[in-house]
Amino acid sequence: MADNKKMVEEITSRDVDFAQWYTDIVKKAELADYSSVRGCMIIRPYGYALWENIKAELDRRFKATGHENVYMPMLIPESLLQKEKDHVEGFAPEVAWVTHGGTEKLAERLCVRPTSETIFCDHYKDIIHSYRDLPKLYNQWCSVMRWEKTTRPFLRTAEFLWQEGHTMHATAEEALDETIQMLNIYASFSEEFLAIPVIKGRKTDKEKFAGAEVTYTMEAMMHDGKALQSGTSHYFGNGFAKAFGVEFTDKDNTLKNPYETSWGLSTRIIGAIIMVHGDDNGLVLPPMIAPTQVMVIPIQQHKEGVEDKAREILGNISAFCRAKIDLSDKTPGWKFSECEMKGIPLRLEIGPKDIAENKCVLVRRDTREKYFVPLSELEKKIPEILADIQRSLYENAKESLYSRIYDAQTMDEVKDLAADKPGFIRAMWCGDLECEMKMKEEAGLTSRCMPFDTEPIGDTCVCCGKKAKELVIWGKAY
Amino acid sequence: MADNKKMVEEITSRDVDFAQWYTDIVKKAELADYSSVRGCMIIRPYGYALWENIKAELDRRFKATGHENVYMPMLIPESLLQKEKDHVEGFAPEVAWVTHGGTEKLAERLCVRPTSETIFCDHYKDIIHSYRDLPKLYNQWCSVMRWEKTTRPFLRTAEFLWQEGHTMHATAEEALDETIQMLNIYASFSEEFLAIPVIKGRKTDKEKFAGAEVTYTMEAMMHDGKALQSGTSHYFGNGFAKAFGVEFTDKDNTLKNPYETSWGLSTRIIGAIIMVHGDDNGLVLPPMIAPTQVMVIPIQQHKEGVEDKAREILGNISAFCRAKIDLSDKTPGWKFSECEMKGIPLRLEIGPKDIAENKCVLVRRDTREKYFVPLSELEKKIPEILADIQRSLYENAKESLYSRIYDAQTMDEVKDLAADKPGFIRAMWCGDLECEMKMKEEAGLTSRCMPFDTEPIGDTCVCCGKKAKELVIWGKAY
Repeated sequence: MADNKKMVEEITSRDVDFAQWYTDIVKKAELADYSSVRGCMIIRPYGYALWENIKAELDRRFKATGHENVYMPMLIPESLLQKEKDHVEGFAPEVAWVTHGGTEKLAERLCVRPTSETIFCDHYKDIIHSYRDLPKLYNQWCSVMRWEKTTRPFLRTAEFLWQEGHTMHATAEEALDETIQMLNIYASFSEEFLAIPVIKGRKTDKEKFAGAEVTYTMEAMMHDGKALQSGTSHYFGNGFAKAFGVEFTDKDNTLKNPYETSWGLSTRIIGAIIMVHGDDNGLVLPPMIAPTQVMVIPIQQHKEGVEDKAREILGNISAFCRAKIDLSDKTPGWKFSECEMKGIPLRLEIGPKDIAENKCVLVRRDTREKYFVPLSELEKKIPEILADIQRSLYENAKESLYSRIYDAQTMDEVKDLAADKPGFIRAMWCGDLECEMKMKEEAGLTSRCMPFDTEPIGDTCVCCGKKAKELVIWGKAY
Repeated sequence: MADNKKMVEEITSRDVDFAQWYTDIVKKAELADYSSVRGCMIIRPYGYALWENIKAELDRRFKATGHENVYMPMLIPESLLQKEKDHVEGFAPEVAWVTHGGTEKLAERLCVRPTSETIFCDHYKDIIHSYRDLPKLYNQWCSVMRWEKTTRPFLRTAEFLWQEGHTMHATAEEALDETIQMLNIYASFSEEFLAIPVIKGRKTDKEKFAGAEVTYTMEAMMHDGKALQSGTSHYFGNGFAKAFGVEFTDKDNTLKNPYETSWGLSTRIIGAIIMVHGDDNGLVLPPMIAPTQVMVIPIQQHKEGVEDKAREILGNISAFCRAKIDLSDKTPGWKFSECEMKGIPLRLEIGPKDIAENKCVLVRRDTREKYFVPLSELEKKIPEILADIQRSLYENAKESLYSRIYDAQTMDEVKDLAADKPGFIRAMWCGDLECEMKMKEEAGLTSRCMPFDTEPIGDTCVCCGKKAKELVIWGKAY
């Protein structure tokens, strides 16, 4: 196991330097790499396979709720971006501008889309005329660009991949229902598929999306106690529709502006998978998202019959799980270590002794538990263990989240918790921006959300002592 | 059928004005729309569903041959683009330049990728070190941008969607095999899945990709006899690898540059589907690519039991085909016409009389043939008819292609054919650029390809009379 150890030693421990641990995993599990382009990452095959799985499952859920995919231009004319005041103020400072086509200077600058509300509205104005044309439930999978100063792979990059849903509805109520429906789809996807528990709630005015009336969010807690905003869903009222002249004739024969939503989830979520489940040996992937669920590793593969048997097993188990075989000339120890680094949920070891006894060894990535399993029972045992890993990763993450949410009644409590206890803090808030700013300045905390279905834990604002309006979850955030 | 007629009248006949017919279909079948961004189109749900089907099937074929998907930055620094001389000369005049990020002027201009050879090579230099790292078989699905002057939806747009494969190999032979393998995948995909026959061959030096040693192409013939280059596969030798410093230590312990290929197929292929199969009633889709294969249309749907029965049939047939139901309040005639416009391969009509007799009516989009089918036989009959439509569209397209390839021995014959007979012209060529240019100037023809496995049809160049080197297929092209 000497070389196994060597590979492991190259990763920083996550409790020594979490940021460095994160970067090490991204590099060594070959998820992403830096590029020559400032702030832009290369998503490598293993990282992209994760995104493909995320995409397939979310897309299935979107289509099951009646959404259709489209593709809109990646460039947006400056004049379109400027049509909604709050929106342009929020995004103009961080867009990349195209000013020349070939050798010609353009008459109007075009920005690389940071998000596509404007261009969707511009299209909706052409295709929505009657209540019969509503709702429009469009989504697109694409890349967007925000000219960020400091960047980290997946978490914050100038360019990232995402999906953005943009819908139009005849009534405000229907649009609000859609906003909540999509947040719920994100949350159940995250919990069931990624084994990441989330807290759902509403953003404060300060934290909401530029141009939105309401922003809903799901917030996940990373291993270091910090929050990651993992998916957001926005309600716009009919503000954008008015600004862009989107109108329809309703059943009562009057002209109205439709109500709009948008919602997005990005490659950022891969950062959450890493930071919620990973450990000091590398990535740990929930089986439902893992590109490879079982890696078959032959032991003493040069001995007669071993490679053949290993291939035979691969063929058999491929009927019920995503399996691969490692027939390279590396040592088994090295292969084990690579499997761990890549977070493959189960490894299957098969050597001459096992073959003689018609069994093999299964080793779980999460607990390292070993199972000696007769070959005839693999079809039953592998799906069982994979399901147990999925369940157990979720339970652990849930325990890790809920055991680190603390209540605070005074600013001193807030500051003590912020200094000593990584995690989220629940505290009452009066609703004033001033107090929200003070939480940032004095305790380094931002409001993550005003969670749904929660009882107040006091009457007064933890910051100013005035009457409290909202229970807020505060935290340090990525 | 009055309203049916009305909708049909709005399309130009394809034999009156093919270009206008094409534009009408794109609009009326709701495949794409124009946007506020010069030269960029909006791909609407129905058009995007076609692209999703193309993507899924091609991606399956790429993965089955060992390729992996990645994602590279969409912006390329000017200095990277300039590393390979021929490449930059070919692309620099038609790229969009990003010069500002937010309010800051960038130190170096970045172009929106027109293609990604340069950025792949820049990455390959970091991850290829040993023969063990080869081959690298990467592909990406993305959008690219080429600042075209005149644009038409799908056929030529500033931005378009495509996939671009970029592979690196230890030997020239292996890279050449890959180039041919990928061309063959494109061609069999086109013929089996899109029912579009193609001619495979090599491009002349004038027509090859900027920076490539060899470009292979598949050329399809549209209804008007013009050619559409529908997929290309390039062999680069090790020129790019040298320019970018990509090196590996081979088994013999010497340092070598690997050999490269790239290959791409784009949303342009949707233009081919329209122009090969469509007719004066609209789009005609091969069943394998059709988002909806069967549309269920209830007749006298207000009568008791009709809607229920139609829904029941939809449920049953959905087990073996992609089916939808039209329960809108439009007239049946209008619905038939919409089905035709959208090229849905089969429509299924069910009314009170049919229900009484336990049967329904199936109508083929391609031949308009009607079948009266007992409901109990739908499971057998629908797949049979769909397969027959697929086969028959392919056979018709093949007949249309091969009956319009003409041989020419003299320049006069070439000119007469070019003027009178829409289609391809086979003629011998000496290999000189001058004669290739003359074919363009005097007959309006470009070299489409030097087809594989073809016997020469003469000894002398049709243009200059000197010794001929190659049989070339000439044509007018999109």
